[in-house]
Amino acid sequence: MSSTEGKVICCRAAVAWEAGKPLVIEEVEVAPPQANVVRVKILYTSLCHTDVYFWEAKGQNPLFPRIYGHEAGGIVESVGEGVTDLKAGDHVLPVFTGECKECDHCKSEESNMCDLLRINTDRGVMLNDGKSRFSIKGKPIYHFVGTSTFSVYTVTHVGCLAKINPQSPLDKVCILSCGISTGLGATLNVRKPKKGSTVAVFGLGAVGLAAAEGARMAGASRIIGVDLNSNRFEEAKKFGITEFVNPKDHKKPVQEVIAELTNGGVDRSIECTGNIQAMIPAFECVHDGWGVAVLVGVPHKDAVFTTHPMNFLNERTLKGTFFGNYKPRTDIPSVVEKYMNKELEVDKFITHQLPFSQINKAFDYMLKGEGIRCIITMEE
Amino acid sequence: MSSTEGKVICCRAAVAWEAGKPLVIEEVEVAPPQANVVRVKILYTSLCHTDVYFWEAKGQNPLFPRIYGHEAGGIVESVGEGVTDLKAGDHVLPVFTGECKECDHCKSEESNMCDLLRINTDRGVMLNDGKSRFSIKGKPIYHFVGTSTFSVYTVTHVGCLAKINPQSPLDKVCILSCGISTGLGATLNVRKPKKGSTVAVFGLGAVGLAAAEGARMAGASRIIGVDLNSNRFEEAKKFGITEFVNPKDHKKPVQEVIAELTNGGVDRSIECTGNIQAMIPAFECVHDGWGVAVLVGVPHKDAVFTTHPMNFLNERTLKGTFFGNYKPRTDIPSVVEKYMNKELEVDKFITHQLPFSQINKAFDYMLKGEGIRCIITMEE
Repeated sequence: MSSTEGKVICCRAAVAWEAGKPLVIEEVEVAPPQANVVRVKILYTSLCHTDVYFWEAKGQNPLFPRIYGHEAGGIVESVGEGVTDLKAGDHVLPVFTGECKECDHCKSEESNMCDLLRINTDRGVMLNDGKSRFSIKGKPIYHFVGTSTFSVYTVTHVGCLAKINPQSPLDKVCILSCGISTGLGATLNVRKPKKGSTVAVFGLGAVGLAAAEGARMAGASRIIGVDLNSNRFEEAKKFGITEFVNPKDHKKPVQEVIAELTNGGVDRSIECTGNIQAMIPAFECVHDGWGVAVLVGVPHKDAVFTTHPMNFLNERTLKGTFFGNYKPRTDIPSVVEKYMNKELEVDKFITHQLPFSQINKAFDYMLKGEGIRCIITMEE
Repeated sequence: MSSTEGKVICCRAAVAWEAGKPLVIEEVEVAPPQANVVRVKILYTSLCHTDVYFWEAKGQNPLFPRIYGHEAGGIVESVGEGVTDLKAGDHVLPVFTGECKECDHCKSEESNMCDLLRINTDRGVMLNDGKSRFSIKGKPIYHFVGTSTFSVYTVTHVGCLAKINPQSPLDKVCILSCGISTGLGATLNVRKPKKGSTVAVFGLGAVGLAAAEGARMAGASRIIGVDLNSNRFEEAKKFGITEFVNPKDHKKPVQEVIAELTNGGVDRSIECTGNIQAMIPAFECVHDGWGVAVLVGVPHKDAVFTTHPMNFLNERTLKGTFFGNYKPRTDIPSVVEKYMNKELEVDKFITHQLPFSQINKAFDYMLKGEGIRCIITMEE
């Protein structure tokens, strides 16, 4: 039993007081975990576009003050009533979506969209009582996607915690709790390409590079990267990208360019931008008869997908995926194992490291599109 | 060796001289089969919407005079050079699309869209020399989709013939060479529903009823038929349809009606109308997380499929299929076996029978939407 169990813990957290304004490191109170909830000491966190998107709060309901952060690794400090799967000392990755193991989605072999714990970016409180567990001098601070990992201690529903191999280095595998698994699973879980396949990846950010890494692991013979920024090609080669297409360099639609390069189309295509201008060619560039396109990037709310239905009738498949079709508790531990057995390369995604006190610099890197992932060390 | 081998055969055929005009039973000459081609004596043929559609020739390039027909059963009369898979006396089903066994599609486990023998409705001649094998007093008569089964003898590429169990009754299994297999395979081959699944079928014509038959065979617990003609419900019950939705009876979009009936959506949906007004709800009515919609009906050339991309991102799948994803030579014999072992019920699709001399009456039945399949007996 830890000395802090059952007590409020005071610790540092990076609080977003207003949309788009630098975070402020504050001393916050973190309440003990209630039923089915776990308090976790965060050792490392990373920054993902989703944090930045909701921190900028353009076009969403603003919810401030709030503690962001959802890509992280930590150690269980204490568990609430009814938690039997985890105990103090376990190594965990908090995940922005959950797995209750009881709803129709959790019981389905195919879905990971848990009814109870599916991502909810509008909710800033705990499920069981609709209240926050973070406060500063009694004033509540909102949670973010049930994880709020920009705090040395956080509380998370047990269904949002993947228990991982305690031998795995948390400063590396912490990035498997969101973006990297999302891209990796989009390639490996939806319809894994056979050895020797051709794969196109639209968008060479962290998620797209992870999709390429999945294609490399699957033994794809050609991995075509598509991005509007040609500077990304050099870095992308490390992730298995063998060819690069910048739609701006061609007069023809990019789906036609890819079809010509690949004798009719690629075997698999993974769309990681969320831009409808990429989603449509990502579908139309797959080969008739067997091609499968997977949508990963989250579209604008007013976007409309359009195509001629014959593109489907010619036996193409289009499927969307969420968090790479991984069930957080059931599947993420095995992704960590793929890193441990050297099948999956994680280190190459980590381009920056910062102490927690400089977390705003990580926001700057992301806003400038500099690097891929920045690991933030909570202990200083 | 048959006495007719190597010689021109004179026999009766129903010739379409003009678009939309009654066929005329004529005495035609059928040339012997050349390399990789087989001459077949047709015993039974049936009529499919595709025959009627191209006979009406509205909006297509008209090609007359022509011999239609592509749903049939017969016996090999003689084979051309290089044909080793078939010999005189074999029982076969001619198929409107083929399987060369050598192209990328034939080698793919997933595709049945053979590069060499894929359906081509514009071609009215044989592949090897671009000429017809039918003539009347030397004047050529065009072929249709490589089968032209409205003739007592026809010539067909070996790749378009499924060799079937000679014990199977040709007057029944002849209908497995097109529409019934198309619907059946759309349910069973693309993503077979598990026992206890919910399935929606859009369009209760022959193909839709065959899709429902597939769902019944798979053990679906609920099969929801969707059709604008409520009169079809009673007949559809024989094919496993348990519930009926007529979009005209509801103010809400039909996808919402189905989602309400099924706690969020069906597990599988099969679209058999080809109407874009049905294709979109057929996709949107499947459950998030695991629902799969399969498009079967051929759309209008100007149709545009539109949906919000979040419908994909929520882990729905949309796939089109062609001839139920069956490879004609490899797979169709096993469909016949499913009938022979009483797994598949075929007899209930046969609502009419006519002698060849009355073939125009079969066109009338189809134009009036009367019945499902009419078997035409070639010998009188």
